[in-house]
Amino acid sequence: MRVRSYSFDRYVELVRDFHGYAAPGVLVGGYMVDLAYRHLHKAGLYNALCETRKCLPDAIQLLTACTTGNGWLTIHDTGRFAVTFYEKRSRQGIRVSIDTSKLDFWPEIKTWFLKLKPKAQQEEGRLRAEISAAGSSICVTRYVKVADRFIIAKDHGPVVVCPCCNETYPSSVHGLCPDCRGESGFVRLPESELESNRKTTDQTYQMASRNLNRR
Amino acid sequence: MRVRSYSFDRYVELVRDFHGYAAPGVLVGGYMVDLAYRHLHKAGLYNALCETRKCLPDAIQLLTACTTGNGWLTIHDTGRFAVTFYEKRSRQGIRVSIDTSKLDFWPEIKTWFLKLKPKAQQEEGRLRAEISAAGSSICVTRYVKVADRFIIAKDHGPVVVCPCCNETYPSSVHGLCPDCRGESGFVRLPESELESNRKTTDQTYQMASRNLNRR
Repeated sequence: MRVRSYSFDRYVELVRDFHGYAAPGVLVGGYMVDLAYRHLHKAGLYNALCETRKCLPDAIQLLTACTTGNGWLTIHDTGRFAVTFYEKRSRQGIRVSIDTSKLDFWPEIKTWFLKLKPKAQQEEGRLRAEISAAGSSICVTRYVKVADRFIIAKDHGPVVVCPCCNETYPSSVHGLCPDCRGESGFVRLPESELESNRKTTDQTYQMASRNLNRR
Repeated sequence: MRVRSYSFDRYVELVRDFHGYAAPGVLVGGYMVDLAYRHLHKAGLYNALCETRKCLPDAIQLLTACTTGNGWLTIHDTGRFAVTFYEKRSRQGIRVSIDTSKLDFWPEIKTWFLKLKPKAQQEEGRLRAEISAAGSSICVTRYVKVADRFIIAKDHGPVVVCPCCNETYPSSVHGLCPDCRGESGFVRLPESELESNRKTTDQTYQMASRNLNRR
């Protein structure tokens, strides 16, 4: 069974390259994305709302135009393994999840998905064979409309420069930036390291300036 | 100037493929990641903490092993354009951000980064040339230790099956899953569409079962 335009084996390679290893969640996720796109109009442009931060976001990023950084993928992490692709204006789309009542036929998928055994005891080869064979048959779809509260504004709005550290932050935050107010959660490490590090950056800066002048 | 192992032009192509277009934030982000990795020990394995959900996460995902789905990239969106790569155990690492005091030399980068002009009025070609020439010279680095509250447990813990919808959700949530309690924020669309849709899924399921039996 194909995962969008890829064979399953080619998709496994892509997952390894991007995700670091062929995690079952990204493989199953590939079939979930594939199923959703078989139900959506081809000409449409869809945003993704993913209900888990584990694995599934990488299947979405590998197989669709939706990425974390371009704002078309939003993660609302409730720990449920589901994704909705929806049309931006109407907010209508299709939600795909795993129907656990269909897992009895696939013992290794069931063991993995319901966490019935520690990871080390799972049979990786058999699990992958079952995922490949099951395809999207373990999924369930339904048509949904996404609530307003999941639609996040793409832009942070105007920015201001912090008078203390020279970094920008959203103008809706007043005064110093969160870091200079001591709210960022970073602990600065010794100045000595910082200084030697700054020197390196400054040298790069001077070199870059010279390069531009030569053009 | 190279962006990790890529020429700038090759990196622009990769960004187009993944992010959808060669957004300035992903291009500048490439140099930020490159700068961080020039300061980190080569043998180390690093997690990323990104302080914006805009553009920068895609540079991180393209150039390092950290992705949204594998849990090595965490986004704590304060709207500040900065990333920290830190060693998991010690939580120590390097934070890279843009130092706006260095932007006077690069008028198009300054205009874009401080949002001084509407996007349509920005000079895309000149902006890209400046980004390419400036490289990481507009960045500032510092050594930091990441606070505990940014370290998110990778696992959601044990799961339970919702007696109503057959989906799994974290066992820390009691009773029905958030969706069946009506808290998910999805509005179900008409049953007629749902039913025709379920039939398609069930057919796929039966076909997959047959395929496995034939192996």
